[in-house]
Amino acid sequence: MDLKQELSKRANFFNTEMEKFLEEGEPEKLYDAARHLPLAGGKRLRPVLAMMSCEAVSGEVAKIIPLTIALELVHNFTLVHDDIMDNSKLRRNLASVHIKFGSPTAIMAGDLLFAKAFESMHNLNSECKDFKNVEYGLIDCIKEICEGQQLDMDFEERKIISEDEYIKMILKKTAVFFQYAAEAGGILGGGNREQSNTLNEYGKKLGLGFQIHDDYLDMSSDAKTLGKDIGNDIRNGKKTLIAVHALNNASGEDKKILETIFGNRKASDEEVKKVYELFKKLKSIEYAKNKAIDFVSQAKKSIEILPDTNAKQLLLDLADYAIKREK
Amino acid sequence: MDLKQELSKRANFFNTEMEKFLEEGEPEKLYDAARHLPLAGGKRLRPVLAMMSCEAVSGEVAKIIPLTIALELVHNFTLVHDDIMDNSKLRRNLASVHIKFGSPTAIMAGDLLFAKAFESMHNLNSECKDFKNVEYGLIDCIKEICEGQQLDMDFEERKIISEDEYIKMILKKTAVFFQYAAEAGGILGGGNREQSNTLNEYGKKLGLGFQIHDDYLDMSSDAKTLGKDIGNDIRNGKKTLIAVHALNNASGEDKKILETIFGNRKASDEEVKKVYELFKKLKSIEYAKNKAIDFVSQAKKSIEILPDTNAKQLLLDLADYAIKREK
Repeated sequence: MDLKQELSKRANFFNTEMEKFLEEGEPEKLYDAARHLPLAGGKRLRPVLAMMSCEAVSGEVAKIIPLTIALELVHNFTLVHDDIMDNSKLRRNLASVHIKFGSPTAIMAGDLLFAKAFESMHNLNSECKDFKNVEYGLIDCIKEICEGQQLDMDFEERKIISEDEYIKMILKKTAVFFQYAAEAGGILGGGNREQSNTLNEYGKKLGLGFQIHDDYLDMSSDAKTLGKDIGNDIRNGKKTLIAVHALNNASGEDKKILETIFGNRKASDEEVKKVYELFKKLKSIEYAKNKAIDFVSQAKKSIEILPDTNAKQLLLDLADYAIKREK
Repeated sequence: MDLKQELSKRANFFNTEMEKFLEEGEPEKLYDAARHLPLAGGKRLRPVLAMMSCEAVSGEVAKIIPLTIALELVHNFTLVHDDIMDNSKLRRNLASVHIKFGSPTAIMAGDLLFAKAFESMHNLNSECKDFKNVEYGLIDCIKEICEGQQLDMDFEERKIISEDEYIKMILKKTAVFFQYAAEAGGILGGGNREQSNTLNEYGKKLGLGFQIHDDYLDMSSDAKTLGKDIGNDIRNGKKTLIAVHALNNASGEDKKILETIFGNRKASDEEVKKVYELFKKLKSIEYAKNKAIDFVSQAKKSIEILPDTNAKQLLLDLADYAIKREK
């Protein structure tokens, strides 16, 4: 059983369902803008996570399709709005929605995807006794994602962030939604309370590992060229775990260099390189990598009590994949 | 029984409930931005409409508070996002959210209000057999509002719009939400099918009259000075009913003037004045005013079958108010 094949099998199945759900509509410009990102592929990690969690409690995946669609639509609506906020030009190798359709339409396309996510939830069988909690959980996730995103922006303006504050931020921004995807997949798959709690814990730790690895990738992917991402993150004072570690552990001359350059939007390429070298010297990149590995081990440990099934093995492999992937 | 007193009695009651629901939160900047507009007062027309509809079928207003909060939050979330799209600087005599807190936070504040609206719906008693339809109806409204807003923008780029197209646009942008507020108030108030259908029809016609009167107000409020709003609307080619009527009824030299100036972003004040004079000459302003009166008569007629109560009288008065108000 090869994880990549299993991932793409589920992603393909999901893509067909998403195409059916996200139909064309009028006004054309709005619906084209809303369909642009969700129909452009992607890893579909959140839907796949919910599917595998459902399978791991011997649930029927076919019954939770509307949940998986809602998960991906919420994820995409936040991406559309985030890209406007950051003025990011590219997403999934395509022009981002506001670049292609303009910001006003992109704001509304995001809102429409948000509404469509809840529309999809209405296609679930609401007879499940926990349905109301599941629906309510999705609302809660969106609130947390907004809060996490705001914290992320707030942190850029602050000099020092503790590691606890950083973890709280990525918990909200990323991990809570993984947590929800896994738990809701388990609940709607008919899992018992112990199983769904277990999946909740797995999703949370997976999400934390996933986000830290993301930070790590941004900092190492084009390290040789010290590409645009690294430069931007350093100039904007983005508080990744790497930066948080460095800022909290530097002393003397190193500390002064960080305080002068990190978060200075006018820093030269040479100065950016200095900061990057400091990250290496202080072993901050290594620290973040190990932290991601640690969260993933915890994720794997948390599902030990699940029955031994193919799906459980896939969840274990997915956890490893979260910190091994290169994009 | 004075309508204005009755309106403000309900608005005040509503404001207390809104303050309780929309608590402060962390991160502070996000919650301050989200609370800025909903706690700044306003007519609270949609909540009041739902309340009066509930009363008109002898329902208990206290039970539908979560619906009224959801209505106002959805309305406010669309205003926050609209103001970013149009870069409107003022709202309810305060700096608009993106001016005060920046666009990124304003986008998220809108998203948060959207989520909070559905959170509020969860506080309704979901035992009502039509609860799922009511919840689903709110999602549908949001989709229609997005569609209407996009149509409104699309129309600015087109030379000619038929009156039917205009009506379809304001139906989505404004009237569907009035329709929903009245119907949902009736359903959750325990009204029978005939009564809720009646309130649905009332809300729709009220909303159409309300929106056309809004267009009329924009065009007449500061007519003497030919203020900023009129100039902007004419320069942007905004397809109000007044403009739609003029464009469809002008001929010869008048038509040429309209085609050259209307929608020309560089039109001079003198040219704008020429268009305004044409609107008067073609009786387009009068036409729109009469159309609003007509819709309001239809709204009033549609609730004839409701039992004669104070609430029914208030709904009749509210319809008149929709086309008599001066702001």
